[in-house]
Amino acid sequence: MKTRAMVCHAPGTPLVEELLDLAPPGPGDVLIEIMASGLCHTDLSQIEGKAAPYPFPVVVGHEGAGIVREVGAEVTSVKVGDHVIPVGIGECGTCRNCRSGKTNLCEAFLGDIALQPSPFSLNGQPVSAYSGVGSLAQFIVTAERNVAVIRKDVPFHLACTAGCCVATGIGAVMNTAHVESGATVAVFGLGGIGLNVVQGARLAGASRIIGVDINPLRHEQGQRFGLTDFIDAREGDVVAAIQALTDGGVDYAFECAGNVRLMAQAFESTRIGWGCTVVLGVPPDGQAMELIPFQLQLGRRVQGSFMGNVKGRSQLPSLLDHFAAGRLNLADLVTHRLPMSEVNEGFALMKRGQSLRSVVAF
Amino acid sequence: MKTRAMVCHAPGTPLVEELLDLAPPGPGDVLIEIMASGLCHTDLSQIEGKAAPYPFPVVVGHEGAGIVREVGAEVTSVKVGDHVIPVGIGECGTCRNCRSGKTNLCEAFLGDIALQPSPFSLNGQPVSAYSGVGSLAQFIVTAERNVAVIRKDVPFHLACTAGCCVATGIGAVMNTAHVESGATVAVFGLGGIGLNVVQGARLAGASRIIGVDINPLRHEQGQRFGLTDFIDAREGDVVAAIQALTDGGVDYAFECAGNVRLMAQAFESTRIGWGCTVVLGVPPDGQAMELIPFQLQLGRRVQGSFMGNVKGRSQLPSLLDHFAAGRLNLADLVTHRLPMSEVNEGFALMKRGQSLRSVVAF
Repeated sequence: MKTRAMVCHAPGTPLVEELLDLAPPGPGDVLIEIMASGLCHTDLSQIEGKAAPYPFPVVVGHEGAGIVREVGAEVTSVKVGDHVIPVGIGECGTCRNCRSGKTNLCEAFLGDIALQPSPFSLNGQPVSAYSGVGSLAQFIVTAERNVAVIRKDVPFHLACTAGCCVATGIGAVMNTAHVESGATVAVFGLGGIGLNVVQGARLAGASRIIGVDINPLRHEQGQRFGLTDFIDAREGDVVAAIQALTDGGVDYAFECAGNVRLMAQAFESTRIGWGCTVVLGVPPDGQAMELIPFQLQLGRRVQGSFMGNVKGRSQLPSLLDHFAAGRLNLADLVTHRLPMSEVNEGFALMKRGQSLRSVVAF
Repeated sequence: MKTRAMVCHAPGTPLVEELLDLAPPGPGDVLIEIMASGLCHTDLSQIEGKAAPYPFPVVVGHEGAGIVREVGAEVTSVKVGDHVIPVGIGECGTCRNCRSGKTNLCEAFLGDIALQPSPFSLNGQPVSAYSGVGSLAQFIVTAERNVAVIRKDVPFHLACTAGCCVATGIGAVMNTAHVESGATVAVFGLGGIGLNVVQGARLAGASRIIGVDINPLRHEQGQRFGLTDFIDAREGDVVAAIQALTDGGVDYAFECAGNVRLMAQAFESTRIGWGCTVVLGVPPDGQAMELIPFQLQLGRRVQGSFMGNVKGRSQLPSLLDHFAAGRLNLADLVTHRLPMSEVNEGFALMKRGQSLRSVVAF
């Protein structure tokens, strides 16, 4: 079959609509009609060729939600009409990692991601699906293990955010850092992921949630998610400011901007004894974070997670229960809803810092 | 009063015996006669000026054990005749860190260590006490909060090791990494700390304990502490060798050599999903460890601890219960016992890789 999709043909070029060939679902696959897709900074990094693990041409987008239109003969847990989120990190449920109880990184996801099969092609040439999803398309085909069935009472344009920024932020607080009630938290970079770290910290009962950004818009936006303090990173010494606010440093710092200099600042802003830094941002390919070992030996730790260590099928859907119960703010996250024809403007808004999440659909 | 002590007057120069002035114990202080003192690589780094936080001249040595000879009027928990280990990281028991249950870094220890008072002086000029101890002296004076009372049935030349390398290695396994039964472990650098990581991992029930060193002597030595596999770091790709032995990487890696290149290898040798790297070695001043954030985001973490996060007074003495019960090998750790007059030869043995622990005494 065919599907409309937005294709980036080469690094740094705008997305253009193409009518792609879509491999029909195999016995273990699911055909999904994408109803909404959020635009994420890592999509932009791929488009710009800065952190670009997938070969061009590529269909970006990995924060989608849609409706199941067809399932293969061997599919048992997903049925036509289900509302679903396609997830890059599948959950086979049987590999060592899925059974470990420690990680969401299903072994079927690991390995050389550039070699993962994509259902898309154009004139017989392969077209990559970013993050194994490629949700800036009208239809996608993916394996059953990559499909999370979600509740039907959440609008698609809000539900889609659970597939990346909400899971990454909330999960980093709950599953990676294990922020406890009363803790102090600093969040470097208040975009889609950072604001979900903020509301995750609020859910966890953090006593102080300090946001750091260079975009003054983020101050008021952050307050809607639970921010208690805002530091403009352009004004003075951020580390000293955080230490002053918290009598020596925060219990937890989260880097959500993908800037290795900020990662070092986040680390330094954590307190001696038990300070924990969680690195969520993705810097340009090849850039490394630097740590002075003695600063670790003063009781600090540095961690990371992928999609908040949230298991794609068994845990991700429950994030939307928080929303349904009024504990999670998704409405203020989605600042723009655009038709797919304006997707390039959506990325431009993101780059200018004028949007949090733009959600697009055909 | 006066005390004999071995003094390093300038970076890179041998220790020379001096008769130093020793401040008498104040109301909260304890006078200790040092009966044995282990030589540690960090002493050597200070002597050589590579990682040298204390101003010269300096009395190195921080792994001592001795007998209390005098206590100040306000001292309540230590009495004359007690066998004790003087600890650099004191434990006041009342500061926020001591009360946290999370860290051994008593606030009285933190701050600018170069400004910590030393009881030593020579001709009216201050002489530093390395790590706040300076145990290459016949007598030292330290605060009650820096004195751990130990059982009397452990010989001083073995007991002294508990004050640094045993606490650092065992504690890193038990308190920092929390190695669990069945886990796989790699230890980079099989010196005094590395071999205590090995026996800590054995105590924790690790299923595989892989040692990495360039000194072939360490293979057989390591086996006495629980090593199951040895990799000569000069032969081939260490990371690939560890991945092959463990089906993808170890659960825990410990860097005990103070080499930032080895730290990166240790990190890469941990498995995706939950690999934990503990950095214990102290590299030359100014050298940083480099991490690729994406490698953290694949579920890894990096931690450090100081003296194994073992609280100096309330927890350290119990390490010797493991020895008394036959669970800890200290005898094979102390490869050389030397008179203080041969202390420079002791450091030379260490530098040539011919000793594990040399223990000296006046």
